[in-house]
Amino acid sequence: MSRVTARRKTLRISPKGVVRRPDTLAVEEPLEIRTGGRSLAVTMRTPGADIDLIHGFLFSEGVITRAEDIAIARYCAGTDANGQNTYNLLDVQLREPVEVKPRNFLTNSACGLCGKTALDEVRTRIRYPIPTEGLTVETSVLSALPGELRSRQEVFDATGGLHAAGLFTADGTALAVREDVGRHNAVDKVIGWALRENRVPAHDLVLMVSGRASFELVQKAAMAGIPVLGAVSAPSSLAVDLADETGLTLIGFLRGDSMNIYSGTHRVLMDSHGLENSDRNGHSPSRTV
Amino acid sequence: MSRVTARRKTLRISPKGVVRRPDTLAVEEPLEIRTGGRSLAVTMRTPGADIDLIHGFLFSEGVITRAEDIAIARYCAGTDANGQNTYNLLDVQLREPVEVKPRNFLTNSACGLCGKTALDEVRTRIRYPIPTEGLTVETSVLSALPGELRSRQEVFDATGGLHAAGLFTADGTALAVREDVGRHNAVDKVIGWALRENRVPAHDLVLMVSGRASFELVQKAAMAGIPVLGAVSAPSSLAVDLADETGLTLIGFLRGDSMNIYSGTHRVLMDSHGLENSDRNGHSPSRTV
Repeated sequence: MSRVTARRKTLRISPKGVVRRPDTLAVEEPLEIRTGGRSLAVTMRTPGADIDLIHGFLFSEGVITRAEDIAIARYCAGTDANGQNTYNLLDVQLREPVEVKPRNFLTNSACGLCGKTALDEVRTRIRYPIPTEGLTVETSVLSALPGELRSRQEVFDATGGLHAAGLFTADGTALAVREDVGRHNAVDKVIGWALRENRVPAHDLVLMVSGRASFELVQKAAMAGIPVLGAVSAPSSLAVDLADETGLTLIGFLRGDSMNIYSGTHRVLMDSHGLENSDRNGHSPSRTV
Repeated sequence: MSRVTARRKTLRISPKGVVRRPDTLAVEEPLEIRTGGRSLAVTMRTPGADIDLIHGFLFSEGVITRAEDIAIARYCAGTDANGQNTYNLLDVQLREPVEVKPRNFLTNSACGLCGKTALDEVRTRIRYPIPTEGLTVETSVLSALPGELRSRQEVFDATGGLHAAGLFTADGTALAVREDVGRHNAVDKVIGWALRENRVPAHDLVLMVSGRASFELVQKAAMAGIPVLGAVSAPSSLAVDLADETGLTLIGFLRGDSMNIYSGTHRVLMDSHGLENSDRNGHSPSRTV
């Protein structure tokens, strides 16, 4: 079985001098997903939570809607040219054959997609619209999430080279944290976990990611019905637009006691930052921007 | 024409209080590339250097080998449903029709790709093997590259949300710096620039990237014959393996006066760090790890 980290020799140059030493790196390996004998996708990923990954990936792509839609998922039983099982090919047998659509966008627009048509296409694929009422999160909880995520990044500590995604409850309890060289894979892994745990639609959970928030990450969160997405770094313009469109609360630059809320401010309750406590009826002193 | 940055309203929460203000974000928009009327790819990118992007993308994918292979590239002349030209569809007319292979990997391996077969597939696609002799770079030049790159990131300064890639000469002169929400796009843009400037194979240039070094980035550098790739953050295991395989110098954690050289140490000349100067005949005091 492929490992999550690997050691490679490195020449470390620093003001202290030059040292030859082994360095621990995040493993990146290709994973091919096949359905019905047909290759569906090849993704470069960090091995270790492949079953979560394919559940999240197939769900985000709209191929499956619940864990039971996958009858069997198994690694190719054969070996490669070197007589080794690569554990890099997962053959997925679906409960019922479905037509697999191409990734992300149908390119059916005469003159190309604009941001708006991209948003529209996502909206039509969403099965679990995010409810307006329900989950609220306190700013003190949000501010603690990056640290909680970081403290559970076992591989990052060794390698410094991995993205992370985590699913948290409204009180900040970590339910699942996954790491990967690809940020989309890390998110697919936690959503796949939620699907397998029968927690989708995840209307009660917060998704926290270690880097930036792209359109694709908001799309994955919205598909899973997750109402709050927090990111340590910047969102893109289209990420904000899609969050607006789907009613998702998008928070960026979540660092220390600071954060930017780009959409869905009504889910955020201010309980610190020198401000008076919000009332607990689900309304924050802040209003929709 | 789509813009590179966009403003969105945000609620900024910090210990200083709560402020409603506009925030400048990096634009993310879908770009569809068509050849011969057929959709080849849709990539989420930051508009602004699309012609560079498609040159680099088509070159990295092995569709073209020089700028002249593209006869015409033009934005769709029509309009979308709202009567606007999205500038998100580039129709590329190739000088000679070529069979376009699927992205990155042919999935012809019976039991899935292992890292080794992925490396082999890249090797067979490389047209410009990296020469062992030739380019060398001093550590003081390398240490200056992250700052040089950063200082040319016009959009990052405004948004904090973009990856960057830059092509530099051996003395650290910046030739081209491009930004994008996707790191692979930023690299495609500078390689596309090099192709259009007739500088490919770029055996005399150093590629610097703002983030991590993945397999895909090493692949793009190797395809363009670039001998040195520097990254601010960590490489993955397979990035190091591919650099080894293709004879590329891969440097990670390039920060301040420190760096880790993972492969091709013979191209790095130590001229600082309290060590005696290297001789200028192309040999470094360091030896291959």
